[in-house]
Amino acid sequence: MSSAVLLDEYVRDVPDFPKPGIVFKDITPLLTAPDALREAVARMAEPFADAGVTKIAAAEARGFLFGVAMAIDLGVGFVPVRKPGKLPAAVHEMTYELEYGTDTLQIHQDAFAESDRVLLVDDLLATGGTMKACIDLVEQTGATVAGCSFLIELEFLNGRRLLGDTTAAAVLRYE
Amino acid sequence: MSSAVLLDEYVRDVPDFPKPGIVFKDITPLLTAPDALREAVARMAEPFADAGVTKIAAAEARGFLFGVAMAIDLGVGFVPVRKPGKLPAAVHEMTYELEYGTDTLQIHQDAFAESDRVLLVDDLLATGGTMKACIDLVEQTGATVAGCSFLIELEFLNGRRLLGDTTAAAVLRYE
Repeated sequence: MSSAVLLDEYVRDVPDFPKPGIVFKDITPLLTAPDALREAVARMAEPFADAGVTKIAAAEARGFLFGVAMAIDLGVGFVPVRKPGKLPAAVHEMTYELEYGTDTLQIHQDAFAESDRVLLVDDLLATGGTMKACIDLVEQTGATVAGCSFLIELEFLNGRRLLGDTTAAAVLRYE
Repeated sequence: MSSAVLLDEYVRDVPDFPKPGIVFKDITPLLTAPDALREAVARMAEPFADAGVTKIAAAEARGFLFGVAMAIDLGVGFVPVRKPGKLPAAVHEMTYELEYGTDTLQIHQDAFAESDRVLLVDDLLATGGTMKACIDLVEQTGATVAGCSFLIELEFLNGRRLLGDTTAAAVLRYE
């Protein structure tokens, strides 16, 4: 894949979405362009190619977009992190704060072996709340978090602060 | 990939989920096994390799699991079908009936060109309501539905009836 694919050109700014004053980073133009999509998946996986990753995990819904493709790229399995009521076996659960109210995520208790090294994936690092919940869920299972990979990081929201010592990589960063 | 990967062995029956009397087909063991995951994606794409597919589309959340990986497999782009309030640009919308109540899905109006041939993807064909809504949404954009591909079909629910003349393929079928 040529590095001449400028991924930034495939992210569309949508002003005042989902509410006035917010500029939404719309990745649908990137998803719909085959070369950009393939390049994005490869570049999200690349920093962790030698990190001994044994599983990818990602939260619904947008984390699923890149998680399975990256798992296939790295030759490992995929574990879904889901909203309540979706996973049929015994779960660990984490409730975390949003700007207004809270949200809850679950993971299967039998998702990992203790020897697993898990790469967490999402399209966007904003305030970091969702990813922090995913880190906590993986640690509850006894597995190790090898890192977090994002397509986009909104640096001005300082989401890395919440992620502590976890290695975090982002393909596109906006100040 | 060896055809010796028996995908059926990676689907776990969970009785009485999400409610008494229902046997849930849990695909998390398949997702977590690298060879089975890769094989599932390849076998879902294979029937449409010569169908002139130019885009994959899938509904959140579980359709996203296979949609992007299949898009990369077929060398085409991916279009997300989402619940209301998630897509930032102008949308087409479809409301459809569930067992209790209704659900609504949206697609970006600019997702396709009229020349696009769209393969729709989901993990499961049950009653077919979600996939029928996706077919209607793609047709609203003016593009052509090339077919539907599922990992699992629950034949006893007769979901194909709702899909009309659309070509539908499933890797695993349960009577």
